[in-house]
Formats: sequence, structure tokens, C-alpha cells
Amino acid sequence: MELSRRDLMKKAGMAAVGTGFAELSLSLANKAAAAGAAEKKQDKSTDLPWPYKKLDPVTVAEEAYQGYYRGACGYGVLEAIVSPLQKEIGFPYTTLPLTLFVVQQGGVADVASLCGALNGAAHAIFLVAGGMDKKQREIAYAIIQDLFLWYEQTALPDYRPKTPRYEISKSLSGSNLCHISVSKWCKTSKFKSFSNERSERCGWLTAAVAKHTVELLNKYADGAFQAAYPLSAAAQNCRGCHDKKSKLENTRAVMDCGGCHFTPAMKQEHPKL
Amino acid sequence: MELSRRDLMKKAGMAAVGTGFAELSLSLANKAAAAGAAEKKQDKSTDLPWPYKKLDPVTVAEEAYQGYYRGACGYGVLEAIVSPLQKEIGFPYTTLPLTLFVVQQGGVADVASLCGALNGAAHAIFLVAGGMDKKQREIAYAIIQDLFLWYEQTALPDYRPKTPRYEISKSLSGSNLCHISVSKWCKTSKFKSFSNERSERCGWLTAAVAKHTVELLNKYADGAFQAAYPLSAAAQNCRGCHDKKSKLENTRAVMDCGGCHFTPAMKQEHPKL
Repeated sequence: MELSRRDLMKKAGMAAVGTGFAELSLSLANKAAAAGAAEKKQDKSTDLPWPYKKLDPVTVAEEAYQGYYRGACGYGVLEAIVSPLQKEIGFPYTTLPLTLFVVQQGGVADVASLCGALNGAAHAIFLVAGGMDKKQREIAYAIIQDLFLWYEQTALPDYRPKTPRYEISKSLSGSNLCHISVSKWCKTSKFKSFSNERSERCGWLTAAVAKHTVELLNKYADGAFQAAYPLSAAAQNCRGCHDKKSKLENTRAVMDCGGCHFTPAMKQEHPKL
Repeated sequence: MELSRRDLMKKAGMAAVGTGFAELSLSLANKAAAAGAAEKKQDKSTDLPWPYKKLDPVTVAEEAYQGYYRGACGYGVLEAIVSPLQKEIGFPYTTLPLTLFVVQQGGVADVASLCGALNGAAHAIFLVAGGMDKKQREIAYAIIQDLFLWYEQTALPDYRPKTPRYEISKSLSGSNLCHISVSKWCKTSKFKSFSNERSERCGWLTAAVAKHTVELLNKYADGAFQAAYPLSAAAQNCRGCHDKKSKLENTRAVMDCGGCHFTPAMKQEHPKL
């Protein structure tokens, strides 16, 4: 899917309020949809998007770090964002069964697929910026894609909790997958994949993803969100032949290609045992 | 994470009822936890796990196929399972904002990471079989892992909707990722990745995943769930050196390794242009 994110965000910002606790419903391009949502809210509707009040990124990061040790990565991010909104706004946030997002643990049920912190963040962003309507989806997806590409391209964790259990080094994942993110960190840090230090690293990462997610949502609330992490030039080049509207059009992805394709780590021969 | 799934399921089945509309809360090994949950339910608690009534897999598959065209893959699976439970059971299923799961579309926000049908199914399974408690998580994770491995190892879609838009061929993904699942199907079918036929294929796949998920949940409700799709011998061999409690312990995964590692598709040289 090719999104004109800049255009979308420009539209989304048109009706935005710039000060105080901006409710995101006010920042929607489609005013008619927002009016409809407000009307339904009087009927106790839980239709998306839900109203949002800007949160403090550091407070959320600290809560996410604590939440990680209760309910893992996906829960850690989602709970740290939704819990203060339950207090500040109440309904409909109070209806959400937060324990559900525990399932995103370790790339969903410990399978090591999509990083749980990203999965939780995507769900939080969609609550605030998403909806069934195609245009509303695209607004949320632009924010989520920017978050995922930030995660791929940034040495993480880039947030240190105030009272950590261990000191943790950073690593570059190049991927949104738990399996690759953990492997790369293990290689950099020399710690084992089921060590207490690796667990702590994922706690820091949960905090870092929650913090960055809130920074993005706060920008969106101000009508100031702009995508900051485009796909790499190399991946754009791959997409020229393989993605939507290309000659081959034989795959889909908004992620780096080089982490799995044509890299030494993927070589056909296993190292000598 | 290494689960003794057989043992867990044996325990889970000990208190199970085998006939009629079995509430899953009755099939939990930990009777004290179940009693606690029932007590809280009187206080309108939305604590997991939620009660379950066995559903008809084909009815759910048909609804998932329709739901796919409204809200994509993750929504398609989750809505097709939760919607009849909203009618049969009501609260707490009626509190869930189903539109939230639209975000799982195309491997989350069209990023092509984890297959949305699997993401939606994992969340549905966790509602019925999961919870914050570690043992409760492991019960749900065992079911989810079996579903994910079924998806990897089975030629899909293996369900044909009653009134399809196109006829669709099967393909073997070998992965739980949208990117790989779509690429493999495009290669087999010769259709493009953003064609109407590929979209229809994902509709069939949504139906197939919803059907299999309900079959697993119904078995669980009968206390008869047993994992049927172990990791391949090759992947088990890899884990012997790389996963939990191994010599290297430098990664984590409950998925096939060969789809990305040491395969011709991952060769270091790009085919001649």
C-alpha cells in the first residue's frame, strides 16, 4: 500500500487545535465523521477513534517499564498509554480488557514473530487515530508505519528507566520481528536470549517504544505529525520491481529487505560445527 | 519458551465437561482461579478468561469471509468468533471494540509483518483461554502456537466460501508472516500481490484460519485439545544449539527456520536483471 503520508497528515492537521489537551477527534480531516462519532458517544458507543489527551512521554515510559514485568511487552506499551487515559477521559477507555494484550508477549504467544511492543503500540495508535473508514485507517497506518520504521532504523533501547535492574546496551534490529530484534541484541551484548539481562533489555525497549508512541500521538494531537523514517533507498529500489504497481508486483512490505535477503547472515552454508 | 503442551492440556481437560455448550471456565485446571473469576463476573469484571460456548466452524468461516471485505483479515477472524458470542453470552464480549482489530490488516497497518488472520485468532484465543497468570498464559499460548504451526505447514486456504468471487489455489507459506505468505501464493498462483484475486485469497485464508481456530477452541472446551503440529525436525535441530537452555542460546522462535535461513530464495546474489 502506498500512502501519501504527508498529504494525509496535512489534511488531519487542518482542523487541529494546537494548545492544551487537544482531543484528537477535533483533529480529523473529516469533520462529518467526527460529528457522527460525537453523536454516537452520547449513546455510549465505543466506535473509533477515541478522544485523546496529550500524555507525558517519560511518565508513560516509566509505567511501561513496570508494566513489562507484570504483563510483558505488548501489555506494557498498551497499558501505559491506556491506563492514564482511563483516568483522564474514562469511557470508553475503561471498557478495554487490558489483560488481552498480554498475548502479544514475545512476538505473540512467545512465537517471536512481530515484536510485542510494536504490536501493542499499533493497537494503542489505532484506538486514538483509527477507524473502519478507509481514510481513517490510512491516517493511523501512516503513524504506525513511521513507528515501525523508526524501530528498524534506530539503535534501541534509547530510554533508560530511572531505577533499572541492569545497565543495557543498544543494538540495531533492522527488522520489526522479535526473533531478529532479540538475536541482534544478543550478538551485540553477548548475553543469552533467555537471560535476565535480555528480559531487562525488552523492558527498556517496551519503555522506549511507549515513549516514542506517545511523542507521535502528541504530535498528531497538535496536527503536527509528519513521517520521519522513510524506507531505506535500498528497500525503495527493491519495491520498484516487486511491490504495488511494479513490473513484477509479487510481494508486499513496508520494511527493510536487506535484513533477510542477500546478507551474509542468510548465507546458504551453515558455519562449520 | 518450552512448553509441555501435552501436560498442560491434560491438566486443562481434567475438570472439563464434554457435552453441550461447555463454558471454558469450567475446563480450567485451576478451579480456585475459575471460582475467583466467576465471583468477579458478578461485579461486571472483564478479567480473562471469558466464558465460551462452542461455535459452528463453518458458520464462523462464512462470517469471517464476509468480515474480511469489511475490515480485513484480523478483524475478519476476531469479529466472526466474538460476534456470535456477543449474542450467545453477551457481557463481557459486548464491551469489546471490534473495529480495533482492523489495525491487524495486511500484517499490521499494511506493513506485511505477522499475518493479520493469525494475529486476530491469537487475540480471540487469549480472550477464551488466556489471562495474566503465568499458567493461564501457557494454556493459551499452547493453542496459539499449534495454530501458527498449522498455518506454516498446511497448504492454505483449505476452506472454500460458499459463494466465492474467484476460485483460489492453495500454497504453502512455511512462515507466519504476511510478506512471505503472500509472496509464496503469488509465486504459486501467478497472480499479482495487489490483484483482486490475491485479496480474495486472503478472504479465503481469513475464513480458513477462523474455522481452524474455532475447531481448536471447541476441542479446548471439551478438554480434548492436543497439539497436532510440532516444529519440524529440522527446526528442532536448530533449536538444539540456538534456543532456550542450549549451548549458544542466542535467539528465540517457535517457527520454521528454513524459510529464511540457508534457502535458495535467500541467496546472496540477486538474479541477473
